[in-house]
Amino acid sequence: EIAVQAADLFETGLLAGLNVVITAGPTREAIDPVRYISNHSSGKMGYAIAAAARDAGARVTLISGPVVIPAPERVHCLRVESARDMLDSALAQLGQCDIFIAAAAVADYRPMTAANQKIKKSADSMELTLVKNPDVVATVAAHEQRPFTVGFAAETQDVDIYARDKLVRKNLDMIVANDVSMSDIGFNSDQNAVTVFWAENQQSFAQMSKQALARELVELIAHQYQQTQEQQSS
Amino acid sequence: EIAVQAADLFETGLLAGLNVVITAGPTREAIDPVRYISNHSSGKMGYAIAAAARDAGARVTLISGPVVIPAPERVHCLRVESARDMLDSALAQLGQCDIFIAAAAVADYRPMTAANQKIKKSADSMELTLVKNPDVVATVAAHEQRPFTVGFAAETQDVDIYARDKLVRKNLDMIVANDVSMSDIGFNSDQNAVTVFWAENQQSFAQMSKQALARELVELIAHQYQQTQEQQSS
Repeated sequence: EIAVQAADLFETGLLAGLNVVITAGPTREAIDPVRYISNHSSGKMGYAIAAAARDAGARVTLISGPVVIPAPERVHCLRVESARDMLDSALAQLGQCDIFIAAAAVADYRPMTAANQKIKKSADSMELTLVKNPDVVATVAAHEQRPFTVGFAAETQDVDIYARDKLVRKNLDMIVANDVSMSDIGFNSDQNAVTVFWAENQQSFAQMSKQALARELVELIAHQYQQTQEQQSS
Repeated sequence: EIAVQAADLFETGLLAGLNVVITAGPTREAIDPVRYISNHSSGKMGYAIAAAARDAGARVTLISGPVVIPAPERVHCLRVESARDMLDSALAQLGQCDIFIAAAAVADYRPMTAANQKIKKSADSMELTLVKNPDVVATVAAHEQRPFTVGFAAETQDVDIYARDKLVRKNLDMIVANDVSMSDIGFNSDQNAVTVFWAENQQSFAQMSKQALARELVELIAHQYQQTQEQQSS
């Protein structure tokens, strides 16, 4: 009931009438029917953002890789496995998407070929050829029906440099960066601390629950989105 | 309460006084701090066997890879990540282990080197060199303090042939084989159907809940273990 009250308090209508698409969780890239490559990601951050965006009045579509947490209520949840599945789902949303928030930990590479049968173990070593996956958030940001696009950067070193580089290189409106080398935040933790970069600005959020952080991020994203809209119409 | 009653009924004491070690879940083999290779495995089958062995009177140690299900009560649970971690934990149990049941989906291969920092994405393709992991169940079965050893085989084709081959090649006492190409059993399903092979014999179990199957398996394993003990003492 406290959660319900908190949700009521947050019902600012900041995102009222807007369609927000959020990706969350890891992707899995099949090596064969049994084995796969994946990333550490619980999906908690993306799911918390989906709930916060819903509470801010948005119609929310959550495109989720394989995770074990339940979908938030009143959020349209699409389940996907691979990066290519996630991209297909994301592109299908464009045209009816105002804000795209890419919180998923998409696998950068996938095995060049996925075997139909379980590969039998024999050699002492084997070479696995990996090919680059499509970049989901960069593809969305480069699309002619480009929404306001927010990326995430999980880094283990030089977080600011890599995040600013991604912001520019992928043509994002904003990027949320966290240092996953710190064991008490990120990944499977219930806490997170991030720095958000956009244009010439940045804002840091000290460690807090992913729920609380999600609300801060949604508020910041909503304000930047509105500024962009005002600039475009003036 | 029905579950408690069922547990009481099963308290046959078939494994009273025995130490049973069970491995469960997948292993994860790090590519770098963010990426890993893993196998599809919920851990449900191994956890159900641990609970069934406990109900049959055994002292149970469960060596578990990363899963999201809770450890059964009154079971000693050791959490591991990689195949090498799992082997270390298993070997540490020998000398005080009567029956070893290897239900885990251990990764056959791991990346030759795990990078300390997140590998930066640049090339269109990359070669990942994989090296063979230690074979946990075969190493246990070859140990001088060898317990009664039961393996598992998850196959997508020619299940009987591969299972019989593993039984002999790895010097196992029994092997539990399931066909993971069937979508309604195995992996993340709550149901399973298996065929158990030992010596010149085999026994098939039709599709049922993993809990019910675990009790059937524990009963069969206990009987075979006792026969082996009688043969050794006669």
